[in-house]
Amino acid sequence: MLAASWLSPFLLEMPLSLGELLKMVGLGAVALTLGVEWLDWLARRLWLRRGPQGPLKEVLFFPSPITCVEHLYSPARALPCSCPLPHGMDTSFTRLLVHLLSACVSLDLCVFSFSHMELSRAVLLLHSRGVAVRVLTDRDYMSISGSQIGTLRRAGIYVRHELSKVVHMHHKFALVDGRKLITGSLNWTATAVQSNKENVIVTEELELVRPFQDEFYRLWEDSDPANHTHQTPIATATKGLVTHS
Amino acid sequence: MLAASWLSPFLLEMPLSLGELLKMVGLGAVALTLGVEWLDWLARRLWLRRGPQGPLKEVLFFPSPITCVEHLYSPARALPCSCPLPHGMDTSFTRLLVHLLSACVSLDLCVFSFSHMELSRAVLLLHSRGVAVRVLTDRDYMSISGSQIGTLRRAGIYVRHELSKVVHMHHKFALVDGRKLITGSLNWTATAVQSNKENVIVTEELELVRPFQDEFYRLWEDSDPANHTHQTPIATATKGLVTHS
Repeated sequence: MLAASWLSPFLLEMPLSLGELLKMVGLGAVALTLGVEWLDWLARRLWLRRGPQGPLKEVLFFPSPITCVEHLYSPARALPCSCPLPHGMDTSFTRLLVHLLSACVSLDLCVFSFSHMELSRAVLLLHSRGVAVRVLTDRDYMSISGSQIGTLRRAGIYVRHELSKVVHMHHKFALVDGRKLITGSLNWTATAVQSNKENVIVTEELELVRPFQDEFYRLWEDSDPANHTHQTPIATATKGLVTHS
Repeated sequence: MLAASWLSPFLLEMPLSLGELLKMVGLGAVALTLGVEWLDWLARRLWLRRGPQGPLKEVLFFPSPITCVEHLYSPARALPCSCPLPHGMDTSFTRLLVHLLSACVSLDLCVFSFSHMELSRAVLLLHSRGVAVRVLTDRDYMSISGSQIGTLRRAGIYVRHELSKVVHMHHKFALVDGRKLITGSLNWTATAVQSNKENVIVTEELELVRPFQDEFYRLWEDSDPANHTHQTPIATATKGLVTHS
């Protein structure tokens, strides 16, 4: 009834001229278009408020409790793990492992000290899956007791180290598939993961990832023994070749 | 002429009834409102495309060349500094100092090792300006040779340290005015700044800043000697009181 009374001037009684009718239709069309745009804008604004705020940004703090991580290596296994450690817990360390194991194409590591057995296992697994792994580490810390660098090299992973005898390669970052950055204060050691107060940022924010990509490329080239023939490197960068000083 | 012909049905000939006129005015008002909203949305979208991409995100790599930084402490000085160091250079270290000196209200530091003289000078300057400075550091590294922790305490800055004898407080982050996070692999030492391969992220990204704020608060409370009466802290957290073991 209301609709009919609303339409009546236009459809029934027709007191308007054709030009006036066209103007009204035009106004209505403009209002409709703007209304749709406005609703779209409103929906986006509400989505932005409630939904995820852009690229991945995650902060992990350590120490992390020691828990079973077998399910991260073989999620489809039939029987649950029977080890005595707590199971199914979401810790900073399991989050770190999840991000690391998400690598499908490449993993570039730039770590001062690498002696953590479980992190070494994850890197070796990625390598066996065909992920292109490169490891850049410190000169002094690559051959200390418990270092996993030798194990990685023996498995055929490309390893280079800081060539200077007086400078430390003190970074602790990883680039997963060239798009996910894992960086912080955490060295890849059991003490750092289980005891120390440490932090790790995981992000896909392009403005943060890209500078680290460039820096890795620069450091990798700088650490190529072929570019430093005047020095006596303690180990070559040849794939899989292990030479200790 | 066009405007007049457009208005003529409403103002001059008045063939519309009052109800019809009200409907048209209503339609026009709706169109106008939606139009303003749409223009606002369009302006925001264009601004976002051309303007800065969200909150501050900056990455600094070290080592950084040694340059004069006097202009950062007294930008309005009449005469240029006469020291022999290079002047007017924008380095990773000057960027770090600029961000640090931007503190107006508070500075929360959580640093494993702090022996850099220039960074100590900056923190002391902020303290003298009335900025609320809190420093949380490692137990073992607070009294090593060259540590600036004693100097900061003597100046009246609140200092606490990790209370455990077996755990390292290995963070290297700062919170400027509770909204700008400075974090990375860089210890606050001359070797780290001038020699090592290091990184620092500076960001105002809320999703990154907030977890570090919470962590600082938690660690600060945990390091309150009053909460650990069973231990024998090597120094109390009393403002300005210096006690070394």
